[in-house]
Amino acid sequence: MFLIKIGGDENLNFSAICNDIASLWKKYPGQLIVVHGASKFRNRLAQQLGIPIRTITSTSGITSYFSDENFMKVFLMAYAGWINKKLVSLLIKNDVKAVGLSGIDGEIWLAERKKYLYVKEGNKIKLITGDLSGKIKKVNIKLLKILLSYRYLPVICSPAVSNQGEILNVDNDAAVFQLVKSLKIKTLIYLISAKGLLKDFNNPNSLVKEIRFFELDSFLNSAEGTMKKKIIYTKMSFEHGLKKAFFGDGRVNYPIRKLLLEQKGTVITL
Amino acid sequence: MFLIKIGGDENLNFSAICNDIASLWKKYPGQLIVVHGASKFRNRLAQQLGIPIRTITSTSGITSYFSDENFMKVFLMAYAGWINKKLVSLLIKNDVKAVGLSGIDGEIWLAERKKYLYVKEGNKIKLITGDLSGKIKKVNIKLLKILLSYRYLPVICSPAVSNQGEILNVDNDAAVFQLVKSLKIKTLIYLISAKGLLKDFNNPNSLVKEIRFFELDSFLNSAEGTMKKKIIYTKMSFEHGLKKAFFGDGRVNYPIRKLLLEQKGTVITL
Repeated sequence: MFLIKIGGDENLNFSAICNDIASLWKKYPGQLIVVHGASKFRNRLAQQLGIPIRTITSTSGITSYFSDENFMKVFLMAYAGWINKKLVSLLIKNDVKAVGLSGIDGEIWLAERKKYLYVKEGNKIKLITGDLSGKIKKVNIKLLKILLSYRYLPVICSPAVSNQGEILNVDNDAAVFQLVKSLKIKTLIYLISAKGLLKDFNNPNSLVKEIRFFELDSFLNSAEGTMKKKIIYTKMSFEHGLKKAFFGDGRVNYPIRKLLLEQKGTVITL
Repeated sequence: MFLIKIGGDENLNFSAICNDIASLWKKYPGQLIVVHGASKFRNRLAQQLGIPIRTITSTSGITSYFSDENFMKVFLMAYAGWINKKLVSLLIKNDVKAVGLSGIDGEIWLAERKKYLYVKEGNKIKLITGDLSGKIKKVNIKLLKILLSYRYLPVICSPAVSNQGEILNVDNDAAVFQLVKSLKIKTLIYLISAKGLLKDFNNPNSLVKEIRFFELDSFLNSAEGTMKKKIIYTKMSFEHGLKKAFFGDGRVNYPIRKLLLEQKGTVITL
């Protein structure tokens, strides 16, 4: 099983990505799922609608967005509304029967709301309320397997849902990890807006061509925010059955072909 | 099989509607699908984003919106992004495993783009280009039946898709008719922001309690735009296997219960 994660940057070449996904799907029918982001588009949409975006820092130093009801509305519009359907329509153009789903649908990502959210503000620790974020507790693999067995390609995005029907922001990379674990994914492909994993994230030419998964820790200090999370969860994925991971450039033509066949990008092995 | 169509007005009581859908689903598991609108929310969102909405009138006198790429983006955000997921989450709250889908997903509504669009502007007939609207040619009943057989409730909305991957605006009531025909729906329930079918649409107290389907024509002159389409397609639905249709108030508590059990609203019979 393959999992392809399409990043949330707007400069990714969706059309080229979907062409390549279609080729992979034809070679491995029913053996592939897609997860995508839409963070840049969401943030731009929030700005256009005059909805403030507030960055918060957890006590462990991880930054995220304060997710109140207005934020989650924009979230749904950007992820489940625009980018998800854009990708599905591009896959249909390539003769793939894709089905776009958020983590809410059929409780694909069943999450539990974080009851208390403590954040750092300068030197102070503050408890904040009204935040709608959570942690995935269960993946509905049954629904995904049904779709795959009938040759429908699931295209999945945040947010998740609680069993109380709360629409919850969850970390996308944590969600990918949950999918890898529960669907026994062997190959994970990250398409991002960089050439791959960089030794120095300020230097686009410092591409790491190959690395073993247990060496990933060495990147944690140099990687920036969202890449840091990807590295942590990729390492965890290897500890739960993953055999191979790729980080490749999603801005180019034939992004997956170049990654898998020409080894343009980073390959992470067991 | 039941089909429940939830109107596009923002004053509908989504929470009450979803409670009642959950009761119906528990009584008739796998025997129900939901279709919804979001037109009012879409139009307000377009306004907030500064995207102009242009009304066009076909040569046969039917008004619709000019659907260019910007309009379709807002369309997706409102329908597939916000309202669809709002309804799905409310159903999940009521222990129904709902799955939200647009007509694009799995080609549920496969449409053909209108090649030429002639519109009336005053006394002139003009050909306009760049419009992304179409007509449904095929419903993917296979996917809907799979979901129903595994007890997932499909919650469906516009837009549709062409086999070229074009995202197309289709008439929602025409889409409901296509579903009635292909899924052999016997009972159609319209939840709207009125007490039911009105003899005089300016008079909210002119409710028609009961009517035979072949008498519906008499309403065509008095009904306003969107209601006119509903009446035309409901009549056609009866000519294709429908046994009973209801028009009821979606703004109240227990909207479906009141309609089916207390006959509050309009019932249309064979």
